[in-house]
Amino acid sequence: MTRSAPARDLETRTADTLATLATPAVDVWVATASAGGAPHLVPVSLAWVDERVVIAVEASSVTARNLAASRVARLAVGPTRDVLMIDSVLEKAVGVADAEELATAYVGQADWDPRRSEGYVFLVLRPVRVQAWREANEMAGRTLMRDGAWLVARHDGGETR
Amino acid sequence: MTRSAPARDLETRTADTLATLATPAVDVWVATASAGGAPHLVPVSLAWVDERVVIAVEASSVTARNLAASRVARLAVGPTRDVLMIDSVLEKAVGVADAEELATAYVGQADWDPRRSEGYVFLVLRPVRVQAWREANEMAGRTLMRDGAWLVARHDGGETR
Repeated sequence: MTRSAPARDLETRTADTLATLATPAVDVWVATASAGGAPHLVPVSLAWVDERVVIAVEASSVTARNLAASRVARLAVGPTRDVLMIDSVLEKAVGVADAEELATAYVGQADWDPRRSEGYVFLVLRPVRVQAWREANEMAGRTLMRDGAWLVARHDGGETR
Repeated sequence: MTRSAPARDLETRTADTLATLATPAVDVWVATASAGGAPHLVPVSLAWVDERVVIAVEASSVTARNLAASRVARLAVGPTRDVLMIDSVLEKAVGVADAEELATAYVGQADWDPRRSEGYVFLVLRPVRVQAWREANEMAGRTLMRDGAWLVARHDGGETR
C-alpha cells in the first residue's frame, strides 16, 4: 500500500466537500431501495442548490419510485479513495417544467438540461449526515454533518455550531 | 456537452469490462438494502475470481448483514462516465481465515490483506446482469450479461452463446 497523505482536519474536509459539491458537471451515485429491500444504484449529475443535492431523473425510474415511497437515499460523490458519503431525505419532487428557479440553478451546474427530455422530475435531497475520507487514516473524523448540522463553524451567515 | 466518442460494440465493451474487473487495487461501490428498505452504499476493494466479484468486509458491517438477509447487491465499478453496473447475488460468505485459496486470490489483486484485521469475511458475489456504458450514446447495447450468461461469444473455453 502506498503511504497515505496526512489526514485532513474538519475544516479542510468541509471546505473540500463544499468545493466538490459545487463542481461543474459533477456526478453522484444514488443508492435507494424498494419497499421489498431490493437495492438500486445509478450515477447521475447533481447540482448543489441552497445546501441541497438536486438530481433530475425520469419520473418513472426506479430511483424516483423508490424515493417517493421511502424518502431516503444514500449518495456518494467522488472516486472511491476521495469519497463523500451523504445520507439524505427527499424534501421535494417536482416536474422539471414546473420549477424555473431550480431548473436555472441545475442547468448552471450540470452539463445537460432535463427540460429538453420528456417526463423528468427534480428530486431535492436534504443532507442529514455527511462523511468524507480518502484513505484509512481518514476514517477517524470522517463525519462533517450530523442530524442535518455541519460540525464546523461556517462563515457564510449560517449558524455557528 | 462535449462530443462523445463512438459507441463501443458488445465485444469491445465485454473485453473492457473484463480488463477493468482484473485491474489491481480496483474498487467497487456496493449497494445493499435492509429488509426495511434502508439503502446502504460503501466503496471497497474487489477481486475478480472465477467470474465472481469477491469483497472483504467486517462480518458485523451493514453490508454483510444486509447481504446475509437479502442475498442481493447492486455493484458499480469505474467512474460515473465509464461505468460498469453489476446486479449480483451472494453465493457464499466465509471467514477470511477459513478460505486460503480465496485469500490468496484476493490479496493478489487487492492492495490489502483482510487476514491482518479481526472479524472480516469474504463475500462471493455472482453476477447475474452486467451493463457497461460511458456516455448517453452507449445506453443502447449496454447489457453484456443477462441471467448470468455473457451475451458475447467467449473464447476462454466457456460455452458460446
